[in-house]
Amino acid sequence: MLGNTYPNIVCSAARALEIVGERWSLLILRDSLFRGVTQFSEFQRSLGIATNILARRLEVFVENGLLDYVPARSGREPSAYVPTPKAMDLKPVIMALTQWGDRWMAPDGPPVSFHNRSTGAYARLRPVDEDAGDAVPLADIVARPAR
Amino acid sequence: MLGNTYPNIVCSAARALEIVGERWSLLILRDSLFRGVTQFSEFQRSLGIATNILARRLEVFVENGLLDYVPARSGREPSAYVPTPKAMDLKPVIMALTQWGDRWMAPDGPPVSFHNRSTGAYARLRPVDEDAGDAVPLADIVARPAR
Repeated sequence: MLGNTYPNIVCSAARALEIVGERWSLLILRDSLFRGVTQFSEFQRSLGIATNILARRLEVFVENGLLDYVPARSGREPSAYVPTPKAMDLKPVIMALTQWGDRWMAPDGPPVSFHNRSTGAYARLRPVDEDAGDAVPLADIVARPAR
Repeated sequence: MLGNTYPNIVCSAARALEIVGERWSLLILRDSLFRGVTQFSEFQRSLGIATNILARRLEVFVENGLLDYVPARSGREPSAYVPTPKAMDLKPVIMALTQWGDRWMAPDGPPVSFHNRSTGAYARLRPVDEDAGDAVPLADIVARPAR
């Protein structure tokens, strides 16, 4: 279909999609970021994903700086895939995709919900004025070229 | 690669990706939702996209209930593609993807910025406690199965 470049177009969102825009990738990241899954066997059990697909996805995440691979230590601790700050910053992307899917594409109700680990309260994304912190109605948000 | 179903997995986010998880689709929606673009020729000029690709994407959006097609009225007003509430709700997805891309994948600086149309202030997504409205640190957000 498309190559990796857009003539005359620079789009951060499109670049982000190159990383999370595949469903197994998204599910692996969700387990890593929101459930603390770190071990190969845990991902496999949680997702029911084929070994070769999982291995390849994890490899790509390590190559792209989203997961750090921590080798096993003398048999006591198994090897682990630990999310980096670059990966942690994807949490809003996954929350936004999930919130939309919950509302418009989940006839059986939402499969997961997001919570504040400390308080247990539901957590969700809200658009706000960057300075004042006030909520902004979605309809009022516009985009402008930054340069 | 993957089919459209995951054995034993229901994932709203993955369903959302089926709609926005392609880069031209994302760019068309961005123009529609954040810039008020409605006409075929405007999309084409803004994105430099091939006519057949644009026509097909718009068709799919209409089929999926994201855009309403409003036929031309007696030559005075051209036909238009108008975003539905289902599409408006994708604004946070596009903002989240863009915010991440701006931070981690845009060496030349962000290509667009989001603003409150009324005040001009920068707008961004913030994770909050659903009830109290307080900001929640990303690191504190966890996911739990909803059932």
